[in-house]
Amino acid sequence: MSDLIVMGESIPNLPWQDKPKNCPALPLWRYSANPIIQRNPAPDIARVFNSAVVPYEGAFVGVFRGECVDGVPRLYLGESADGIQWNIDSEQILFKDGHGKPFLSLYAYDPRLVKVDGEFYIMWCQDFYGASIGLAKTTDFKTFIRLENPFIPYNRNAVMFPRKIGGNYIMMSRPSDSGHTPFGDIFISESPDMVYWGRHRHMMGKTAFWWESVKIGGGCAPIETNEGWLLFYHGVTGTCNGFVYSIGGAILDIAQPSIVKYRSKNFLLTPEEWYEERGFVPNVTFPCAAVCDGDTGRIAIYYGAADTYVGLAFTTVDEVVSYIKANNSLTAEDREIGIR
Amino acid sequence: MSDLIVMGESIPNLPWQDKPKNCPALPLWRYSANPIIQRNPAPDIARVFNSAVVPYEGAFVGVFRGECVDGVPRLYLGESADGIQWNIDSEQILFKDGHGKPFLSLYAYDPRLVKVDGEFYIMWCQDFYGASIGLAKTTDFKTFIRLENPFIPYNRNAVMFPRKIGGNYIMMSRPSDSGHTPFGDIFISESPDMVYWGRHRHMMGKTAFWWESVKIGGGCAPIETNEGWLLFYHGVTGTCNGFVYSIGGAILDIAQPSIVKYRSKNFLLTPEEWYEERGFVPNVTFPCAAVCDGDTGRIAIYYGAADTYVGLAFTTVDEVVSYIKANNSLTAEDREIGIR
Amino acid sequence: MSDLIVMGESIPNLPWQDKPKNCPALPLWRYSANPIIQRNPAPDIARVFNSAVVPYEGAFVGVFRGECVDGVPRLYLGESADGIQWNIDSEQILFKDGHGKPFLSLYAYDPRLVKVDGEFYIMWCQDFYGASIGLAKTTDFKTFIRLENPFIPYNRNAVMFPRKIGGNYIMMSRPSDSGHTPFGDIFISESPDMVYWGRHRHMMGKTAFWWESVKIGGGCAPIETNEGWLLFYHGVTGTCNGFVYSIGGAILDIAQPSIVKYRSKNFLLTPEEWYEERGFVPNVTFPCAAVCDGDTGRIAIYYGAADTYVGLAFTTVDEVVSYIKANNSLTAEDREIGIR
Amino acid sequence: MSDLIVMGESIPNLPWQDKPKNCPALPLWRYSANPIIQRNPAPDIARVFNSAVVPYEGAFVGVFRGECVDGVPRLYLGESADGIQWNIDSEQILFKDGHGKPFLSLYAYDPRLVKVDGEFYIMWCQDFYGASIGLAKTTDFKTFIRLENPFIPYNRNAVMFPRKIGGNYIMMSRPSDSGHTPFGDIFISESPDMVYWGRHRHMMGKTAFWWESVKIGGGCAPIETNEGWLLFYHGVTGTCNGFVYSIGGAILDIAQPSIVKYRSKNFLLTPEEWYEERGFVPNVTFPCAAVCDGDTGRIAIYYGAADTYVGLAFTTVDEVVSYIKANNSLTAEDREIGIR
Amino acid sequence: MSDLIVMGESIPNLPWQDKPKNCPALPLWRYSANPIIQRNPAPDIARVFNSAVVPYEGAFVGVFRGECVDGVPRLYLGESADGIQWNIDSEQILFKDGHGKPFLSLYAYDPRLVKVDGEFYIMWCQDFYGASIGLAKTTDFKTFIRLENPFIPYNRNAVMFPRKIGGNYIMMSRPSDSGHTPFGDIFISESPDMVYWGRHRHMMGKTAFWWESVKIGGGCAPIETNEGWLLFYHGVTGTCNGFVYSIGGAILDIAQPSIVKYRSKNFLLTPEEWYEERGFVPNVTFPCAAVCDGDTGRIAIYYGAADTYVGLAFTTVDEVVSYIKANNSLTAEDREIGIR
Amino acid sequence: MSDLIVMGESIPNLPWQDKPKNCPALPLWRYSANPIIQRNPAPDIARVFNSAVVPYEGAFVGVFRGECVDGVPRLYLGESADGIQWNIDSEQILFKDGHGKPFLSLYAYDPRLVKVDGEFYIMWCQDFYGASIGLAKTTDFKTFIRLENPFIPYNRNAVMFPRKIGGNYIMMSRPSDSGHTPFGDIFISESPDMVYWGRHRHMMGKTAFWWESVKIGGGCAPIETNEGWLLFYHGVTGTCNGFVYSIGGAILDIAQPSIVKYRSKNFLLTPEEWYEERGFVPNVTFPCAAVCDGDTGRIAIYYGAADTYVGLAFTTVDEVVSYIKANNSLTAEDREIGIR
Repeated sequence: MSDLIVMGESIPNLPWQDKPKNCPALPLWRYSANPIIQRNPAPDIARVFNSAVVPYEGAFVGVFRGECVDGVPRLYLGESADGIQWNIDSEQILFKDGHGKPFLSLYAYDPRLVKVDGEFYIMWCQDFYGASIGLAKTTDFKTFIRLENPFIPYNRNAVMFPRKIGGNYIMMSRPSDSGHTPFGDIFISESPDMVYWGRHRHMMGKTAFWWESVKIGGGCAPIETNEGWLLFYHGVTGTCNGFVYSIGGAILDIAQPSIVKYRSKNFLLTPEEWYEERGFVPNVTFPCAAVCDGDTGRIAIYYGAADTYVGLAFTTVDEVVSYIKANNSLTAEDREIGIR
Repeated sequence: MSDLIVMGESIPNLPWQDKPKNCPALPLWRYSANPIIQRNPAPDIARVFNSAVVPYEGAFVGVFRGECVDGVPRLYLGESADGIQWNIDSEQILFKDGHGKPFLSLYAYDPRLVKVDGEFYIMWCQDFYGASIGLAKTTDFKTFIRLENPFIPYNRNAVMFPRKIGGNYIMMSRPSDSGHTPFGDIFISESPDMVYWGRHRHMMGKTAFWWESVKIGGGCAPIETNEGWLLFYHGVTGTCNGFVYSIGGAILDIAQPSIVKYRSKNFLLTPEEWYEERGFVPNVTFPCAAVCDGDTGRIAIYYGAADTYVGLAFTTVDEVVSYIKANNSLTAEDREIGIR
Repeated sequence: MSDLIVMGESIPNLPWQDKPKNCPALPLWRYSANPIIQRNPAPDIARVFNSAVVPYEGAFVGVFRGECVDGVPRLYLGESADGIQWNIDSEQILFKDGHGKPFLSLYAYDPRLVKVDGEFYIMWCQDFYGASIGLAKTTDFKTFIRLENPFIPYNRNAVMFPRKIGGNYIMMSRPSDSGHTPFGDIFISESPDMVYWGRHRHMMGKTAFWWESVKIGGGCAPIETNEGWLLFYHGVTGTCNGFVYSIGGAILDIAQPSIVKYRSKNFLLTPEEWYEERGFVPNVTFPCAAVCDGDTGRIAIYYGAADTYVGLAFTTVDEVVSYIKANNSLTAEDREIGIR
Repeated sequence: MSDLIVMGESIPNLPWQDKPKNCPALPLWRYSANPIIQRNPAPDIARVFNSAVVPYEGAFVGVFRGECVDGVPRLYLGESADGIQWNIDSEQILFKDGHGKPFLSLYAYDPRLVKVDGEFYIMWCQDFYGASIGLAKTTDFKTFIRLENPFIPYNRNAVMFPRKIGGNYIMMSRPSDSGHTPFGDIFISESPDMVYWGRHRHMMGKTAFWWESVKIGGGCAPIETNEGWLLFYHGVTGTCNGFVYSIGGAILDIAQPSIVKYRSKNFLLTPEEWYEERGFVPNVTFPCAAVCDGDTGRIAIYYGAADTYVGLAFTTVDEVVSYIKANNSLTAEDREIGIR
Repeated sequence: MSDLIVMGESIPNLPWQDKPKNCPALPLWRYSANPIIQRNPAPDIARVFNSAVVPYEGAFVGVFRGECVDGVPRLYLGESADGIQWNIDSEQILFKDGHGKPFLSLYAYDPRLVKVDGEFYIMWCQDFYGASIGLAKTTDFKTFIRLENPFIPYNRNAVMFPRKIGGNYIMMSRPSDSGHTPFGDIFISESPDMVYWGRHRHMMGKTAFWWESVKIGGGCAPIETNEGWLLFYHGVTGTCNGFVYSIGGAILDIAQPSIVKYRSKNFLLTPEEWYEERGFVPNVTFPCAAVCDGDTGRIAIYYGAADTYVGLAFTTVDEVVSYIKANNSLTAEDREIGIR
Repeated sequence: MSDLIVMGESIPNLPWQDKPKNCPALPLWRYSANPIIQRNPAPDIARVFNSAVVPYEGAFVGVFRGECVDGVPRLYLGESADGIQWNIDSEQILFKDGHGKPFLSLYAYDPRLVKVDGEFYIMWCQDFYGASIGLAKTTDFKTFIRLENPFIPYNRNAVMFPRKIGGNYIMMSRPSDSGHTPFGDIFISESPDMVYWGRHRHMMGKTAFWWESVKIGGGCAPIETNEGWLLFYHGVTGTCNGFVYSIGGAILDIAQPSIVKYRSKNFLLTPEEWYEERGFVPNVTFPCAAVCDGDTGRIAIYYGAADTYVGLAFTTVDEVVSYIKANNSLTAEDREIGIR
């Protein structure tokens, strides 16, 4: 590591491979044994993808989007010693409200899992008269307390920040419509109590760069560095044969994260491998979690591939921050006007 | 009045005409000299419609959607001694933020004006990366303080309740998309402080009755009665030649207004007159304010007509509540399941 | 009348006005006191239009599309001594199946009423997992027996012929989709027993003439003449502001009515009057019944106007057949190939 | 076999492989040497898929959708001794009407082939002013007599039952529009004579299970068992990158097959292999014939893969009926109301 | 007139009415006896609208869009002594090519008529594998020579300048698609010989002003003044019930007319009268010719109303140029960047 | 070679492989080591495809569509000794106008490269207020002079002929809209000077053959033979999962190339290989250059594959002309009427 400092815990068993020699100039590289989760990983679960992971008690815990044999997506817990071999529960996560009453939504997908002040929060997309954000918390991965829905429909891709800022919880989200939304920007909202949300700000939108010219959405919980919050997100382009989802990167102001300091004009990873190009939804790489070792700055990114598999990609804070700054698309004015 | 009790102030100069003899069975009737505001009511304002009115210091004050000769909608203040003859300001309302900095959105339309705890709140639709809710307050109709936007885009037809419930401010809104939204239900949200909003609940949606089978939206600030909150809203149907906007009515639970007690299966008023059928957007009757005299239960409804004129319609709390109950479409089960 | 012979009964009290002097060259002219049915003609019926009429016991009986104050279309019976002043039942028609079990569809619209072999048949559009054809019969206009649905969805504008041909009942229909169908041709089907239908043939489609370039649909039950079956139908064009419905005319082969002998390239009537241009669906003239006096060849056409009113237009068999032949758009080849 | 009884003929040479060990819990498994028909199987035929097969004189005969090098689909006959190696005619099937006059439609696709009362019936989709059902019969696979089209357009996926019920022929079909139909339910119709069709009933529609949430369509001719008619059908879901076609299963009442007794909430097979995911239309498994050995209850399912290949899958009546019943999604009420 | 100079001929019999007193601040006012051409103005012509007029030999000549009773638009010649009472030919204009061979397009609409160097040129929209520009010339309004189509499809609203610039003919046009084009900017092209066209430049596009926020199109041939070319064009907005067409104004650089010097942010006239709001296409005012008297600067604008009537509006060069400059929306930068 | 004569230069080092034995009957066959250009061929270029090649000074030069890591397509120069191994410049081509001023469009894609009268012309698609044709020339592949845009938007797939005809330059193009154009025919235009273009003629459109039933577009610069101009173009069909691009062939009249003499009803090549079926846009084969050796008639076709790779296919003039004639879809009448 250079003089970049990461505000993160030590994760000595973080999955890792060094960057291969003949890799393109891009700062992310794939795990050579991808995909790490194959089809039919558990009874009645046809595909697992778009899933989030955190280190937990020396091992790893994840919340998984499992698309069942009835075609419905549900949330499943998984655990792994090394972050690569995963055991996935055969029963979906059971949320309860504050009074212990069970809550089961019609469907649940694209979860994120973020640790804030010692508690683990899960955000996901569920039906609340249309696609909306669900929210829950746990401390032990055994009891899951469902909280109030933070937003009115329609919304997707909610991602919480890993610590409060200015005394408030911070959440990214992506307002949308109820279908295959052909637009979408990332907004940021605050809450003093996880019940009422406000001070909504626009964080960033699609750009003229074709790979993110249709819509974008928050991806992984941001990683705190002394350069700012390091954000991996997804950008979408439209072809005559459907959408293509790539992984992008940006760096946000620490104190005011709705201000984007740097944003890479290039994607960091785009569908190229057979498990990204072929599957239930071809041409998708969809980042949901970036686990960073505070000691080394190594990052392991978990991403959904083709809405069918889970892939793993690597980088370091050093390499990716340098890349984003070197390929920054924002001018001083853009921050104020072009991007707003 | 029968034994219905209205929790409202005395408005002896409320505009009024008795119900004509040969009127259909519906409980609303039109002012015979409609439209009360014609085209080109002020320099550079081509049309005024979809505007809200409150009694103020013995007269009436309104916030008006003025569609200017550049085609852009803006908000204007107006005043009237009798609620029928209106003077409309030639300068649009200037909002300032808490630090006195002026705020001008690219456009502003469909305002509502509601008095809560002695302060007047204006909600409207403005651009915040798409159609969204703007919010401001005033006490003297000279200084207008802009508050935080309550919701993430896309949203329209926000209407505040005229008093707090359970210590919280209550606001209806209608999540939408950024175009001519072909769907839409009314939701209800709460806030302790007008900054952070939560506890979002679904209030009511479109129905199988054709006149409200495409979408609905909150109309006037609810009128408090001992039967519940009396709500006038708009319901929209779709024909091969466009949308038709009618006026509907419902009664909400006083303590938990997301619970609908009665809802009329019939529209209360639908476009029939030339000024409702012909104009910039044909076939629109769009209620924005229902002013109720607490002494008599008389109600004067201000509605936009054909996106071109302002119309006035009358009813009494007695007549309209009876009608809604007599033509109620909700069964006990519907309240729980069918409507949610 | 010239040497044209009409195979119809004598109707001495048929509504009638002579053609005015300054009328365009077109062969249909309007009743001077149109619309004959205004808005709100009965309690809870907001509009009556697209309705069919037959002579019955020296007077006239009709089946009416009544659009109720809940926005839902239902079928109503009406009676009239002169065919102009109508009494419309306040209760919708109650259909029963063969076992006397009542049948109420979610909605019912655009009825036709045709007498075949001494029985009166009603065809209309109703919900059968989408817009489909309903069928019923009566002999006394008191008891209405619902028959099997003749076709699979989606279908509209079914019109029966007034007598069997080749031993089979004959029905026109217009396959469609479940929305505001942007296409549509007239097909003809046969049945030996009103239960099973087959020998489906294409009768005629839209043309390059703009007024009928989007879709067409059967209108009135055909009138039998020695030149062939005289058919009034509707043709639809699309503008940037919606559909326009005009009335067209054609003459079909007596023995094989799927063969079109003559077809007018010009509309016979198109929306021009305020009650045709303004209303729930602007710019609609929609013919549903053509009552013809066998003695004089006079024809009274009942048509829906703007989905809001009922209008009456006149012509004679002589005038309209001559016009259709003089403005025929079909060549010998067209009958085989161009129109199929 | 358990106590399940199959009313089918003995087919000792039915293609077969036992279920592999590491197969998912689903009751269908693929032939290990799939696809059994590759690209360019005959001169000028680019792809063969969506094709139906019956046992015939100790061997197998099939009617194949051959997509030619001019891109047009046509019907071809094929024969096979073992049901796996196929010889496909290089000339398309020539249909003649009752008078021996040849009939060639502009295109013909998705054939089914069903034996009823000793005669073989072919149903397919052809142009009759839009996508419609064609019908023909043969006894010797040399002469093919074209019958009347059973339905008005637009319709697809017609599948006849292998015997009469109540004296009538029974046919499933799927009303549609003329494009890539984004909706669709299965209906059932009867005919005493293969000319006139009626008594149309709704059999089953799409569900809330995502894999069949867009539309469904009849697949294979039902297999008669003492539990009911065993039906394999296709269910379609929509992703941002197109449709995905899976195979579903249901069991119908023997005497009234419009009544669904059991319906699996899970797909039985979904695109997973390269030949199902990649090709002219990615992500399609489309069942067209299920050949069942009456002695053993073994079933060989022929399905189109990616609109490019023919695949073969296996199951037994025992296994699949058990699975459908164990994963049944229908409650007693659903049969009446929820599904209709 | 002030110091504005018009480079136009003297037209003492130009239709004229002074501006009424109670007119809005806008610079155009309507002729009090509008519409000047009513429905059914000639046999088999149902409506005349969107038509162009020039002074000719002391009287006026026009080329008219006549929508016939077959629904097809064709071009007709008309003449008038006073520019208000018009005689319209009953036969459509017959174009011939250079060899005298007649040319009849399937349809022809929205003609403009411009005099350049003593010859009269007609531009219109016709079918050339989609909506495209047709071009012809005449000197005597008896013989009409069809020229080469200037552009590839799809294109509409071609308007020639009344003199060459830099030795080249100059033509505005509006590239489009083949339907109800939901976009559209004005381009300008040059030709040395009326056969080959090039040096295409973008002139102006839609703006953020709602009345012209969907598309714009050239209207009348520009009027040369010492301030620049005075252009009347149409601007279109979209409502949930269709398009609304208003009249806008701009001033172009004399030598380089692709440079816009001033452009009014306000419409100059918008549909308000019954003949503009009601008809075949409601809410249309569509300018096609602006005849200017060189002596007085008086301008008579002929415009189509509701695709049904011809209306007449007045202004003076002085008034309208002042208005456009006073309400100019262009900054110096806009000319270069914002508008391009 | 038979008696077919090719008017082309000698290219002894043209890439070549003989036709394999087990190839389908189609006249094109693939290079066995396809794709010849893989992903990430140069720094910051993610994919190269849809690129044109010419022989130059004993080697080969190409203009390449390089899709960069910012997702934007740009044009790059490449050179190759054998036409198979390519060096691609890392800097995009810099165009200058006649005064040496650099020109960089926002994007540039799908270039063609044609030698006419000793100069090399590049046509491509760029932004000119929407997708439009850019044009430039070079003689040394070091200096590139940008010329006037030949056409108004929207247009794509411009391809120049390799020599003047009748003294004029000849260019094919495909008018379109600005999105994923669901229509499109090939037109042909002429210019005496590369500045002004006219005499636009329709050359050919889509057909009823499904593989080219949505749209077509010019592919390679035509090859001159004594049978006519040999044209390879692309034809597109639409499936429920997107477009499929195949390669078609036609032969044009030498003197009047808007007249099509023969046109193959069959595609010559269609996506079958993994590099054609899988990638950024699945199922695309898009021909951009056909290099022909005048001595042998051997042809090497460069085509884009799946918008991701460059493929190479072979044929001979003899084989492909014979095939097109043998499978000709045009009758004498078609040339006049069916195709126009």
